[in-house]
Amino acid sequence: MDDLQPAADVGTLDVVAVGSALVDVLTHSSARDIERLGLVKGTMTLVDLPRAAAVYRAMGPGIEVSGGSAANTAAGVAALGGRVGYIGKVAADELGEVFIHDISAAGVVVARTEPVAPSDDPDDDRATGRCLVFVTEDGERTMATHLGVASTLVPEDLDEEFIARAQVVYLEGYLWDLGPAKAALRRAIEVAHASDAIVALTLSDPFCVERHQREFLELLNGEVDLLFANEDEVTLLFGSNGFDAALEAVQETGVLAALTRGPDGSVVVGASGPVAVPAAPVAQVVDTTGAGDLYAAGFLYGLTHGQDPAECARLGGLCAAEVISHLGARPQADLRALAGGAGPPP
Amino acid sequence: MDDLQPAADVGTLDVVAVGSALVDVLTHSSARDIERLGLVKGTMTLVDLPRAAAVYRAMGPGIEVSGGSAANTAAGVAALGGRVGYIGKVAADELGEVFIHDISAAGVVVARTEPVAPSDDPDDDRATGRCLVFVTEDGERTMATHLGVASTLVPEDLDEEFIARAQVVYLEGYLWDLGPAKAALRRAIEVAHASDAIVALTLSDPFCVERHQREFLELLNGEVDLLFANEDEVTLLFGSNGFDAALEAVQETGVLAALTRGPDGSVVVGASGPVAVPAAPVAQVVDTTGAGDLYAAGFLYGLTHGQDPAECARLGGLCAAEVISHLGARPQADLRALAGGAGPPP
Repeated sequence: MDDLQPAADVGTLDVVAVGSALVDVLTHSSARDIERLGLVKGTMTLVDLPRAAAVYRAMGPGIEVSGGSAANTAAGVAALGGRVGYIGKVAADELGEVFIHDISAAGVVVARTEPVAPSDDPDDDRATGRCLVFVTEDGERTMATHLGVASTLVPEDLDEEFIARAQVVYLEGYLWDLGPAKAALRRAIEVAHASDAIVALTLSDPFCVERHQREFLELLNGEVDLLFANEDEVTLLFGSNGFDAALEAVQETGVLAALTRGPDGSVVVGASGPVAVPAAPVAQVVDTTGAGDLYAAGFLYGLTHGQDPAECARLGGLCAAEVISHLGARPQADLRALAGGAGPPP
Repeated sequence: MDDLQPAADVGTLDVVAVGSALVDVLTHSSARDIERLGLVKGTMTLVDLPRAAAVYRAMGPGIEVSGGSAANTAAGVAALGGRVGYIGKVAADELGEVFIHDISAAGVVVARTEPVAPSDDPDDDRATGRCLVFVTEDGERTMATHLGVASTLVPEDLDEEFIARAQVVYLEGYLWDLGPAKAALRRAIEVAHASDAIVALTLSDPFCVERHQREFLELLNGEVDLLFANEDEVTLLFGSNGFDAALEAVQETGVLAALTRGPDGSVVVGASGPVAVPAAPVAQVVDTTGAGDLYAAGFLYGLTHGQDPAECARLGGLCAAEVISHLGARPQADLRALAGGAGPPP
């Protein structure tokens, strides 16, 4: 596993994250309401603009919080004191302004990207992406995502010099759903490899894995060095008969994998086999939105600060525990203080 | 005090609230940061667009929640099961859409008002109003408000038939800062009196009282029937030497007054003298934003459902306790369940 330790000071950023820039609209909801809206509890559904408008109309009062999976991870790395950059597309509208304000205020360096100008056509999707999030009493989240301009990421949008400054380039699996964005991710991988950066991929969602199983498996053959997934996602990816079989399958790929299991903690799989790390205690689970994103943040911070994979997983668990103890997918507590003795000071 | 009991079924709405339609942008902050921004802790400062932009740039990551004092009160009345309407102006922009969605989804009937179209001039204030809220560790909130189109309320914007349907017309003192809006409030009072509705006024803010002391006092002479204020505001209003002197002064006006004292509960002053009502217990004060607004909601719901003033004050205290136990100024818990035995079912 140690061959994945990045050399110190390779670049001026610990992590560059590439993802869908979204503003989350959160509401409390019942399982029945979610069913009535035609959504599948616990998963993310991509919706077009008319469907997003219809779901929003049927939704209770909400709160708006900047989100987007990789952006949440970037905010988490920054909260831990890491140097982190972000690439994602917003529109020149109010939610785009909110997104850029929040991620910048969190201490994340945003790559040069021109906000996309609004359109006069009301059917045009050139708005900042939003994710309608229904939080049920069990703390689980169900999402209807309208990607808006986040879906228009193309290779030309990438600031390659910015990517080349990173020790780890972290890619959001969700973007694989989009043809042009997929090309952008492939280009980001090339740039990362050219500068000897670690390429990390998160599988994002079980449905996302079902849609792209073959391509994700191919990526593990030399393109991706570090895989983030939860139990369901990794089991689906390898078509395994249970989690233990998936652990064997992922070990055969030679890729370092950080696999989350909710309250059962996580398992890190490297060359020397799986290592289980228990979850950090949580007094009350309020909203699981961002659990995986913040786990990745802790893991990546640890990895870029000389910690071994089990320590990285422990720090990931601490960050995940913080984010699920309140509403919203970005950290509220002082993660540096929370991490405490988990690693060397930033 | 009983002469303020509204006749049953006078109109089809229990309450119509008139106020500034704002979206709150909340962030956690330190007292030092607030001072550095030139704001006064615990108060509201009106800021123009450039100042609002500068404060926002210096602000940490935020969450956006629909707000506006009278709108919060309206949402609270609806959460209790009351029939409530709202009048306030938003722009045809994303935050305006958020505001209208949230207040409608809360069960409030919004008066017909055309959202104000955006301007091509970047210096133009025709955006939905926003309130930048800094919440300190003591739970206190400090606000920088940019009213945007909320400041352009004019008498012509009032749907007078809508106002005439109310048992209580509830007016936000903040609007008194604006010439045209002041005329709109005066017109709303005329319409309310013509339909035998109760006119309620909240003083909103100590600075607001300092600016309009003489006019507010004049309003108590036949224009306003029910006054909401906190301890500081009512003491400033009458230029009294302490709260007890203010109680005597308010009793002389003959106006029913509901006066809040934070953790010390509230005092209702009517013809038969002051009645103190203790505060409802709160496990942890997270954010006092909306405490006065939700107190008014409980009080108005009680008043329009046959409760005596002390019961109204108790229900107000319950609603205030709920809203200060979480971030944001709109109720999250089921206020009807919370109110429980506090009054007859809606």
